[in-house]
Amino acid sequence: MSQSLAILAHSGGPTPVINASLLGVVESARRCSAIGALYGARFGLDGVLEEDFVDLLGIDEMALAAVGRTPASALGTARREATAEDFERILAVFRARNVRYFFYTGGNGSMRTAWEIAGAARDAGYQLQVIGIPKTIDNDLAETDHSPGYPTTARFFACAVRDIGADNRALPRQVEFVEVLGRDAGWIVAATAFARREPDDAPHLVYFPEDPLPLDQLLADVEGVYRRLARCVVAVCEGQLDEHGEPFGADSRAGSRGQLAMNLGHRLAMLTAQKLNLKTRSEKPGLLGRSSLAYPSPVDWEEARLCGQAAVAAAQAGASGVMIALVREPGPVYCASTACAPLERVAFAEKKFPAEWRTPAHAEISPGFAAYAAPLVGAIEPYGRLGRR
Amino acid sequence: MSQSLAILAHSGGPTPVINASLLGVVESARRCSAIGALYGARFGLDGVLEEDFVDLLGIDEMALAAVGRTPASALGTARREATAEDFERILAVFRARNVRYFFYTGGNGSMRTAWEIAGAARDAGYQLQVIGIPKTIDNDLAETDHSPGYPTTARFFACAVRDIGADNRALPRQVEFVEVLGRDAGWIVAATAFARREPDDAPHLVYFPEDPLPLDQLLADVEGVYRRLARCVVAVCEGQLDEHGEPFGADSRAGSRGQLAMNLGHRLAMLTAQKLNLKTRSEKPGLLGRSSLAYPSPVDWEEARLCGQAAVAAAQAGASGVMIALVREPGPVYCASTACAPLERVAFAEKKFPAEWRTPAHAEISPGFAAYAAPLVGAIEPYGRLGRR
Repeated sequence: MSQSLAILAHSGGPTPVINASLLGVVESARRCSAIGALYGARFGLDGVLEEDFVDLLGIDEMALAAVGRTPASALGTARREATAEDFERILAVFRARNVRYFFYTGGNGSMRTAWEIAGAARDAGYQLQVIGIPKTIDNDLAETDHSPGYPTTARFFACAVRDIGADNRALPRQVEFVEVLGRDAGWIVAATAFARREPDDAPHLVYFPEDPLPLDQLLADVEGVYRRLARCVVAVCEGQLDEHGEPFGADSRAGSRGQLAMNLGHRLAMLTAQKLNLKTRSEKPGLLGRSSLAYPSPVDWEEARLCGQAAVAAAQAGASGVMIALVREPGPVYCASTACAPLERVAFAEKKFPAEWRTPAHAEISPGFAAYAAPLVGAIEPYGRLGRR
Repeated sequence: MSQSLAILAHSGGPTPVINASLLGVVESARRCSAIGALYGARFGLDGVLEEDFVDLLGIDEMALAAVGRTPASALGTARREATAEDFERILAVFRARNVRYFFYTGGNGSMRTAWEIAGAARDAGYQLQVIGIPKTIDNDLAETDHSPGYPTTARFFACAVRDIGADNRALPRQVEFVEVLGRDAGWIVAATAFARREPDDAPHLVYFPEDPLPLDQLLADVEGVYRRLARCVVAVCEGQLDEHGEPFGADSRAGSRGQLAMNLGHRLAMLTAQKLNLKTRSEKPGLLGRSSLAYPSPVDWEEARLCGQAAVAAAQAGASGVMIALVREPGPVYCASTACAPLERVAFAEKKFPAEWRTPAHAEISPGFAAYAAPLVGAIEPYGRLGRR
């Protein structure tokens, strides 16, 4: 029998640390006698279907280290709904090349695909170990304490709101909408509250996409802050909907999970200017928030790498049909280790931002979320201030 | 006669390094025997008119150091068109407090105000030294090699385009518009071309606001890049206009210098999606580009501080009616010193991006601009890549 081949593929939106997981897989695969070769598929399952591979064990150390520190997927990724035909073709490719390990890095949709591939192999009597590697800035993956990618993006937006808040404080008489990534779940927008030190710091208003936001409520909230401070910074999720389930008349397009508003922050800035006759602006760092390593989380990069290493260890230990999960160790000092979670418990679940962590007093951070997210986001350095304003 | 007082005020939009200039003024004022006290005016001329001051020599070293490293104006700033009445009131405040030095940090409009205050004092027979400190991310100030604030913002957008470009490469079949600060002059948008290493790197298209951009040309350019790479990143200025002098139907509002489009990148993304039937997005880091120190320029912060120090030195040497200018020293290694430029040569001028540096082959960087801007923006680290795609 020829040497066993392992394949690594990425799926879904890139993150700032997905290549750290790739690095972890390659590092451990080099030391794993069971894996004869490790191929990276270009652009997710497309690369498997088209047999477009990169020999990942052949990359020299320097190049690999550089790739590991690069945001966005170095292999390329894809959003593909795999069909029964695709699964057949994938298995045929695996058989022909003696692929016995399949590492698939992605979110819950991708874990479902991984679970389906594992099932197809089992049904066909083909010995294949499928290991999922968690990845999503949205932090909505079940069974893991948090998802690699989330801490960096959360910190990016917390720091971005701090910085835009410094500008708004310096040049007031303006309402600022900062549109934040994360469509259905408030994990990222909630983290912007870490930017606050003093009661008058930005963000002044934070909205959770889990709760509909009536326009009248938004306007009343903004007016209240503006009356107090003569300025206002609002952190709002790109997927925020009003009480009718509509994105406030924003333009939208078909996204990977239904319609996606393209200019929500701008739309709210326009409506606020019209209704309250205030000067408004909106900023949309957008994809920069998932592709920048400029505000690095203290833990995310190493944890992403650890997940890659753990995936190879799990494969070597005979696991299959599992996703690597991060487990928070008990104790006063933050520490995470890894475990394996069954794919089917991840594939059909979505971890919502807990209702008890959503604060009715806007921009206050709940103790529960503070304890959860502070070690992930890291300390946000306070900015120097002259006096009280 | 009581001790001479100096006043420092900020004007116009904040920059990431305006507080470094404040730090420089305070450091040098502490060692300057002619200056008995240094007051910072809150929110520009508003603070002078309302006698709302901070004692800047009374701040402790630690707090001052923290303020110096903070983006956006710690004093607060304002966009105010000063009237004849304002000038009278300003002089009355100056007389009453024996203010003999006025340091005014701003762009060309502010230098005009500084020039008018100097004239009003002279006409009134009041001994006052007025020193301008250059500041604008737009880099359109005359008489100075470049303006403090520009290098940091230029580097921010170059790195942002690199990062968004990494995302676009990883998940292609999408056209990305990155809206860049800088309304009339191409200084910032031109710097995004520093993000490129390889011919297929982002940005693929860079447009200069000095040149009208017919929509048909944009669409043809995008189609050409997309046909070649199946992806495209366009860097476009927030103030870009079409061949009719219109912002492509974008929403606009009254800004400090006329109508200002609020969502140009989004508007171009919508038009491109409609006309070319391609998937498009737009990102607008917006004010984050002038309030973030996450991608620091190698020279900007120190030069901004130097300008503050030089302002006090010029005052001590008896200068008035001047702005501190940065002078690039000849020689192979970049080095800048300071000089004084008459305010009237700055106040009525606007430094346009030179026509000979605008490249018809899009996203190519002209040798002239490369030599000028590379030491300001600094080296952009190349990202690791796997193979050619």
